[in-house]
Amino acid sequence: MALSKKPVNGMKDILPAEMEIRDYVTSVIKETYRSFGFTPIETPCMENIANLSNKQGGENEKLIFKVLKRGEKLNLEQAKEEADVVDFGMRYDLTVPLTRFYSNNANDLPSPFKALQIGNVWRADRPQRGRYRQFTQCDIDILGEPSNLAEIELITATTTTIGRLGFKNFEIRINERRILKAMAAYSGFDEADYDSVFITLDKMDKIGTEGVAAELADNGFAQESIQKYLDLFALLAGKKDVAEGVDILTQKLGDYLEAEVADSLKEIAAAVNATKAAEFELVFDPTLVRGMSYYTGTIFEIAMPELGAACGGGGRYDKMVGKFTGNDVPACGYSIGFERIVLLLMESGFQIPEKPKKVAYLVEKKYPADKLVDVMKQAGDARANGQTVLVVRMNKNKKFQKEQLQAQGYEEFVEFFNN
Amino acid sequence: MALSKKPVNGMKDILPAEMEIRDYVTSVIKETYRSFGFTPIETPCMENIANLSNKQGGENEKLIFKVLKRGEKLNLEQAKEEADVVDFGMRYDLTVPLTRFYSNNANDLPSPFKALQIGNVWRADRPQRGRYRQFTQCDIDILGEPSNLAEIELITATTTTIGRLGFKNFEIRINERRILKAMAAYSGFDEADYDSVFITLDKMDKIGTEGVAAELADNGFAQESIQKYLDLFALLAGKKDVAEGVDILTQKLGDYLEAEVADSLKEIAAAVNATKAAEFELVFDPTLVRGMSYYTGTIFEIAMPELGAACGGGGRYDKMVGKFTGNDVPACGYSIGFERIVLLLMESGFQIPEKPKKVAYLVEKKYPADKLVDVMKQAGDARANGQTVLVVRMNKNKKFQKEQLQAQGYEEFVEFFNN
Repeated sequence: MALSKKPVNGMKDILPAEMEIRDYVTSVIKETYRSFGFTPIETPCMENIANLSNKQGGENEKLIFKVLKRGEKLNLEQAKEEADVVDFGMRYDLTVPLTRFYSNNANDLPSPFKALQIGNVWRADRPQRGRYRQFTQCDIDILGEPSNLAEIELITATTTTIGRLGFKNFEIRINERRILKAMAAYSGFDEADYDSVFITLDKMDKIGTEGVAAELADNGFAQESIQKYLDLFALLAGKKDVAEGVDILTQKLGDYLEAEVADSLKEIAAAVNATKAAEFELVFDPTLVRGMSYYTGTIFEIAMPELGAACGGGGRYDKMVGKFTGNDVPACGYSIGFERIVLLLMESGFQIPEKPKKVAYLVEKKYPADKLVDVMKQAGDARANGQTVLVVRMNKNKKFQKEQLQAQGYEEFVEFFNN
Repeated sequence: MALSKKPVNGMKDILPAEMEIRDYVTSVIKETYRSFGFTPIETPCMENIANLSNKQGGENEKLIFKVLKRGEKLNLEQAKEEADVVDFGMRYDLTVPLTRFYSNNANDLPSPFKALQIGNVWRADRPQRGRYRQFTQCDIDILGEPSNLAEIELITATTTTIGRLGFKNFEIRINERRILKAMAAYSGFDEADYDSVFITLDKMDKIGTEGVAAELADNGFAQESIQKYLDLFALLAGKKDVAEGVDILTQKLGDYLEAEVADSLKEIAAAVNATKAAEFELVFDPTLVRGMSYYTGTIFEIAMPELGAACGGGGRYDKMVGKFTGNDVPACGYSIGFERIVLLLMESGFQIPEKPKKVAYLVEKKYPADKLVDVMKQAGDARANGQTVLVVRMNKNKKFQKEQLQAQGYEEFVEFFNN
């Protein structure tokens, strides 16, 4: 078979200029999250295929890169379906592996456990511009903390990180699955239909109120419920302040909305707003749904003015660890859009602060070996003093060589001739 | 299918204590290598299966985790062999992907190109204690540098890094594929038999001179050649100094050893020894073979006194890029044993220098939400000042909770009561 110079279809090589930004973003993330007491962990990039196919992953389960069985376990001749020939799969997110990790290692972990994960995930999406089939996710999660301290810490840690990366004027949109449900219940939808209603509601920003009304009607819901439901959103229009929005709902929904849910969301907002370490706005968004069915409480999303789409999000998922252990553990997580952040920084011509000075030593080709030793010594001293020193042979076209080096960030040149 | 709490067979979860060491090692590696002008790159974890099966990977090619084709491309019913159902494979090293990367991106890369890669690789080895099927490799490579400046920089950069990680008294063993060949030629072996002879020679440290003699005889080589060959090694016994060893060989082998090869190795040794930034010894080891058939010149290995086995190695492989492009590009690389270094540091009870102060705020469960805001503010200020601050709810058994936190490195406690 012929060798291919290209990476696997839909995946990409990362060149030094992008790697420099990625490494910088990673270091800011790690340092900031660590200051909040999050501790890094890592799980294997593969999971047993059963763990990836238990309906927790939603649509992502259709996009798994599956790993062929090996040796005696593989029996191609008798294989009837995919499940017969694969045993592992590449993880499509970091949340499913985290819950497995927690179930496996809970005895060796503190409670609450604050996890930081930065790692690659794989999704066999149709390849398209700017969207890759291997990409980095960056998640923080708090397991074992039932109170809204988890939400407060997650939102504060995330906004502090995004702020330190130089972003301003972003929004954190917040909602509660139990508020979503209370609004649906109040409007007269059946509990069995909530998921369908929320799927339609989730399109609000794309198809507008009329579009949502039409789709709900198409799906056969009663006109009365639809009207009642949309009136609620009309009532909340422009009410970005969390406390104000929640108070309106408390008054309107009555017993449908538990006081504890309303109070908790207001507490989160008060704490987050009072301790801001970045320029952002916390916004109540009653249309926020978040796709994954595993969320059980608060949900949130980051919206960047530079981006149409969300740049990360998360929420509370108190029922997921229980799928592994039989015992539920309160859990709440926040994923930031690592790839989008890198892309925005690349496109903005972002310059990394406090880079070491880069010096290139150009050594004439005929430079004798014994004198080269002194060049290497000089380079060693400069490196020990924090400089980046590149020692290279001098090309015939020195002017062009220097231009190339300048493009790589070398700002000073030292030339060594044998004379 | 039942969910599994365990990671995939032969792979491991990495807990915070180990991650802290891994992150520290990674940061020292990146910072040190960067000071030598190496620039990080990344390739996808998967490669087209043909690229991984072109005989460059030696025995590792038998250990590939292969990725099942997807959608219409997969036709299980008509599949006769593995090759019919897979299109990608997990990389088993970072060298094959690097040469593909270089072939794909050479126009956008400087020359010479100094690459740094830290990434996971996968090998479907039989699972065994302390050896995992997913592990991290850390490689530096210089492409496009024909002179021994490449070897000098690689060895100096690697030893500086290992030294900064706190290791002392290690050895860098060095040899040359062309010296290996000259010694074999001088002894009268046929060129076609070199690989077989070297496989036996490679066992010298395990089976000794007598064992090597016996195996060569078993393989049918002439007694005269065997004797002549082993006499050479006897002559070199204890001659650790590179210049001394090479001079002895120059005298003995005559025309079999090119002067340029001998001079180059002596130049490398002189430069490395003169610019040492760590406590190590550069040692001439004429029995050093290095397994991979792609090496064409200098080869080297790190030996740690703490370890029986090598802790990394590398060499020159000038013919590998040409497999992709048709045009050979001089190349030389050095891989350090990331996992072994982490293991040695873990076992030695290594403490990371200059860690931020870790403070835990214990907040009484009944602490009111409005006052919690002030706690969060105080935490925010301390974090901005470089402290790690964990805000947690106070448990009933506060003594036990504090012990647990101390075990995580929290050295100071602040308690918040509602009174």
